[in-house]
Amino acid sequence: MTMTLDDCRRLDAQDPLAALRGRFILPEGVIYLDGNSLGVLPSAAPARIAEVVTQEWGEGLIRSWNTARWIDLPQRLGDKLARVIGAAPGEVVCTDGTSVNLYKVLFAALSQMAPTGRRVVVSERSNFPTDLYIAESLCRERGFTLKLIDESELPAVLDDQVAVLMLTHVNYRTGAMHDMKALTAAAHAAGALTVWDLAHSAGAVPVALNDCEADFAIGCGYKYLNGGPGAPAFVWVHARHASRFEQPLSGWFGHAAPFEFTPHYRPAPGVTRYLCGTQPIIALSALECGLDTVLAAEPFDGGRGGMAALRTKSLALTDAFIALVEERCPGRFTLVTPREHARRGSQVCLALADKGPGAYAIVQALIARGVIGDFRAGDSQMPDILRFGFTPLYLGFEDVWNAVEHLVQVLEHEEWKRPEFNQKLAVT
Amino acid sequence: MTMTLDDCRRLDAQDPLAALRGRFILPEGVIYLDGNSLGVLPSAAPARIAEVVTQEWGEGLIRSWNTARWIDLPQRLGDKLARVIGAAPGEVVCTDGTSVNLYKVLFAALSQMAPTGRRVVVSERSNFPTDLYIAESLCRERGFTLKLIDESELPAVLDDQVAVLMLTHVNYRTGAMHDMKALTAAAHAAGALTVWDLAHSAGAVPVALNDCEADFAIGCGYKYLNGGPGAPAFVWVHARHASRFEQPLSGWFGHAAPFEFTPHYRPAPGVTRYLCGTQPIIALSALECGLDTVLAAEPFDGGRGGMAALRTKSLALTDAFIALVEERCPGRFTLVTPREHARRGSQVCLALADKGPGAYAIVQALIARGVIGDFRAGDSQMPDILRFGFTPLYLGFEDVWNAVEHLVQVLEHEEWKRPEFNQKLAVT
Repeated sequence: MTMTLDDCRRLDAQDPLAALRGRFILPEGVIYLDGNSLGVLPSAAPARIAEVVTQEWGEGLIRSWNTARWIDLPQRLGDKLARVIGAAPGEVVCTDGTSVNLYKVLFAALSQMAPTGRRVVVSERSNFPTDLYIAESLCRERGFTLKLIDESELPAVLDDQVAVLMLTHVNYRTGAMHDMKALTAAAHAAGALTVWDLAHSAGAVPVALNDCEADFAIGCGYKYLNGGPGAPAFVWVHARHASRFEQPLSGWFGHAAPFEFTPHYRPAPGVTRYLCGTQPIIALSALECGLDTVLAAEPFDGGRGGMAALRTKSLALTDAFIALVEERCPGRFTLVTPREHARRGSQVCLALADKGPGAYAIVQALIARGVIGDFRAGDSQMPDILRFGFTPLYLGFEDVWNAVEHLVQVLEHEEWKRPEFNQKLAVT
Repeated sequence: MTMTLDDCRRLDAQDPLAALRGRFILPEGVIYLDGNSLGVLPSAAPARIAEVVTQEWGEGLIRSWNTARWIDLPQRLGDKLARVIGAAPGEVVCTDGTSVNLYKVLFAALSQMAPTGRRVVVSERSNFPTDLYIAESLCRERGFTLKLIDESELPAVLDDQVAVLMLTHVNYRTGAMHDMKALTAAAHAAGALTVWDLAHSAGAVPVALNDCEADFAIGCGYKYLNGGPGAPAFVWVHARHASRFEQPLSGWFGHAAPFEFTPHYRPAPGVTRYLCGTQPIIALSALECGLDTVLAAEPFDGGRGGMAALRTKSLALTDAFIALVEERCPGRFTLVTPREHARRGSQVCLALADKGPGAYAIVQALIARGVIGDFRAGDSQMPDILRFGFTPLYLGFEDVWNAVEHLVQVLEHEEWKRPEFNQKLAVT
């Protein structure tokens, strides 16, 4: 055997990040491999949220905009997040949802490119649908064409008609990661701007937005950032663009002087103009607890945001999972996620090798056993997928062993044939 | 004297709604007249939010989208709110912020009117600025002109060039209320659509959207609906429009089948298409507690949403405040809010009769005494304003008496001249 349970326990004992698990409240009997969908509750969150609710809202009431500094929460959280995604202080705001934020930055990018006469937005057919829906809407509205391509067409597709290359850095379904630096350089060489969705990257893999010279980025607060269900998302805009363009959701919190109540819009300098209305204080406070869990890894990489240390463990966990699945379920699965480290996010996706049905039911059978991953349905181009996210903050190698052990048993006992595991749920 | 402290106590003793105050946690020593800015914490909220955080998020994790019915929170809350604003079940969603929602509905209204060749959006110069900023952006983008008028120009300004009449039902600064039914009829007669902002109406005054035949409405969750700081807002669209137009923030939660993950957008039927991204579950749960505080008044008007009973008390409270200020601070203030019931919201705004400075400092001196109202700076057309919101759910007549007593003392002792009350805060 390449790896035994004892090996896994030894790896856990040697894991410098092992203590970070104590920063989360994990349900008993659950091995949670769905942090790429909804991150786990940080231990600090219940008390902090209660404080915001009972003290800041309940006691402070309207005064808390000043006394509890509610007014600059989006920027304060943005500065924390900046350390995780290779941005500088003052370049990031946490606000609104991912799709709303994508609308803002894509609109800004299209406005910037409109005078060039370029009229094509390139994205992947396999991008997360909501990104495509937003791009579809904006392209129709602004007179652009959305061109959906396969990954293999990059960078060749970047011709002199392309205005914007809009990509999700780590694919939600396959876990495949783009080379942000190379593709940004290719887009720039072709005269296009880049919009990066970091939904499956922020807190999951090292991101170096400024080093990559990226143009715009947005991402999600409730996945690897552990910000809670439907947490506020974030916006980053490169300093060279931030004060140059307006986004259309020009609400008063993006105004240069919101409390002057002037009838005409004057955008705030920098990324603050990417705020819209009154900010969601309770949700932002929960997100801050999530951001703090990621930054808790900072001491382990010399204070550089923590992602290098998290990445080392993430790759070791996903390597172990792949090795154990291949060894203990031989011939049953195809690995959909790239084996190559440089191309892998923090999740592992499997397809059934026989291309038969059962992927959905296997996931349900695993969930019934406390191993929570999820299922993503296939289409004409892509098989059904069993998706397993690995968050190194709260997962260890013994969890990996146990998850594979449950998978082996689900297969051996053909549990996935049971009717209850074949009933479709509203949300998958 | 027209009214004594004993009279106020007698009115409280006779008040059928008095017990509703028990549904809130009010800070000691505070008379809160700023519920039009941020509503008070509902007593049920801390426990409910804690349950959502520790049980639904912490224990249920991703499963709670199904098991805790997170997936239809926006619609479930919308159905509750519908009872308060004269809408039908299925016509309202609670989601995103007020400004973002205004963008959606105004875009839909402009799309609907584009083929008519009409190119003017009419709004009031004194509308809440964020509404004007959003309209300014959309008009520029869509080739419309935003025409800002004074209230006195209505309805004469509604000519055959007007596409949309966009009004805030109750003015944030003056507390003046429009006749929604008459103005909607006038707009329709002129061939225009109406977009109503109910920020200072929902939970504050009776609203009858369907009876008025209004077209689109949005509003705020954190004022009279007591949903918490930066709470999600809401969208209502008349059934005759709801399935006909798309809004541009076409995220996956507005898709007809979000969990099919198809690459092309297909809007959900009805108002669900006004959702965008993943919904803010913790914030929506807090908002539900706030909605329940308003619906707690339902038994007092025969189960018709509660607003008739709340309105009776609200008018009595604001009548009492006006009478006491005029009697006890003679000649000091001008009443900015309409005296006529049919034109008054649930707030009272005062200006200094001598037009001198001091309004800001009087408000600060009152806040230091625990009487929390707020200040809105004037401009060339409008004086500085002392603004006092009256939420009948948690205020009584003795509160009114005491608030005026503090005002009398602030004036008598010239407390507003103290330097500490003349320092400008970040948020006013």
